[in-house]
Amino acid sequence: VNIPSKLLENAVEQIASLPGIGKKTALRLVLHLLERSPQDIHKFSDSFTQLKALINHCKVCGNLSDFEVCAICSDNRRDQSLICVVEDIRDVMAIEQTQQYKGLYHVLGGIISPMDGIGPTDLNIENLLQRVASGSAKEVIIAIKATMEGETTSFYLYRKLEPYVVSISTLSRGLAVGDELEYTDEVTLGRSILQRQPFDKSLSR
Amino acid sequence: VNIPSKLLENAVEQIASLPGIGKKTALRLVLHLLERSPQDIHKFSDSFTQLKALINHCKVCGNLSDFEVCAICSDNRRDQSLICVVEDIRDVMAIEQTQQYKGLYHVLGGIISPMDGIGPTDLNIENLLQRVASGSAKEVIIAIKATMEGETTSFYLYRKLEPYVVSISTLSRGLAVGDELEYTDEVTLGRSILQRQPFDKSLSR
Repeated sequence: VNIPSKLLENAVEQIASLPGIGKKTALRLVLHLLERSPQDIHKFSDSFTQLKALINHCKVCGNLSDFEVCAICSDNRRDQSLICVVEDIRDVMAIEQTQQYKGLYHVLGGIISPMDGIGPTDLNIENLLQRVASGSAKEVIIAIKATMEGETTSFYLYRKLEPYVVSISTLSRGLAVGDELEYTDEVTLGRSILQRQPFDKSLSR
Repeated sequence: VNIPSKLLENAVEQIASLPGIGKKTALRLVLHLLERSPQDIHKFSDSFTQLKALINHCKVCGNLSDFEVCAICSDNRRDQSLICVVEDIRDVMAIEQTQQYKGLYHVLGGIISPMDGIGPTDLNIENLLQRVASGSAKEVIIAIKATMEGETTSFYLYRKLEPYVVSISTLSRGLAVGDELEYTDEVTLGRSILQRQPFDKSLSR
């Protein structure tokens, strides 16, 4: 696509630099944006520069926060003996959404990914070890996605946490709620048989 | 999704205000953006405010342009006797891409759409009539999409242009190149039979 305006092309290239957005979609979005008032476009633009300038990483757990210490870490009603280690803020939001967890979090800011040049030292791991060494944590839950890179990261964390007096757990793997056996992949199904649970009447509907 | 940061939520809402982008995608895009340097984020943001502040509508054809008169209107080698009326800059780009057209354009800036509250007076139509009345145009090609609203707009333009000494044409409708007859909708197939063309050896491959 050959855009006959440098100004337009520049804006389109910026939008198209976001992952998963092609140049045609970007052009459609920019033309849509251009129909707004100058004030609205300033609001749009400022939201990103403000975010970058003012956002904090919680100095306890590393999660994104408007404050030095995030709302979860500063909430005394939460169980200080549990730390759930996750990749990023989206996982925190997903777990909070379940309303099943009342402990604290530790946000790594990514996972180990040699392909993307991300090693252990690029992640918020050293802080986790200090937190476990000096804090009141009794259990660390490693809640990282079940992909190859996720499993590598989980195993790396397990090895690093092993020396500490803390129990280490991971999310259970198994049949997703609502899934059929015949469409579940064999590794997951195998794990869900090996790690079968005592039948719990209160969970069946 | 309940985002635990006002700064983050604000940026996510701005991105999610673009058409076709949901809140989850917006969050993914904003987190991606947040990993860039402050300089890069300023470049990102500035591209939109600069575009809005500095872009022109060509005073001849109404197309978006970095200049008062766009590159096409100010190109003397183009055929001044032909005006192709289109909806927006994307249609100009699509037709230019074909390299089959050497005339000028007239960009309406939309089509008549009562559902969206867009009437004839919201479009760049008055300028077109003045251009036809005072200029050197011999033919106006109405090149507007073949949807119901597009056809309404085409017919409206036809009625407005009828009084002038100018021939009025539209894009041919018919089988798309590469398409099979059995999968072509009946209206298109019917039109392509009614408007059948003398066989042209030079176009067959």
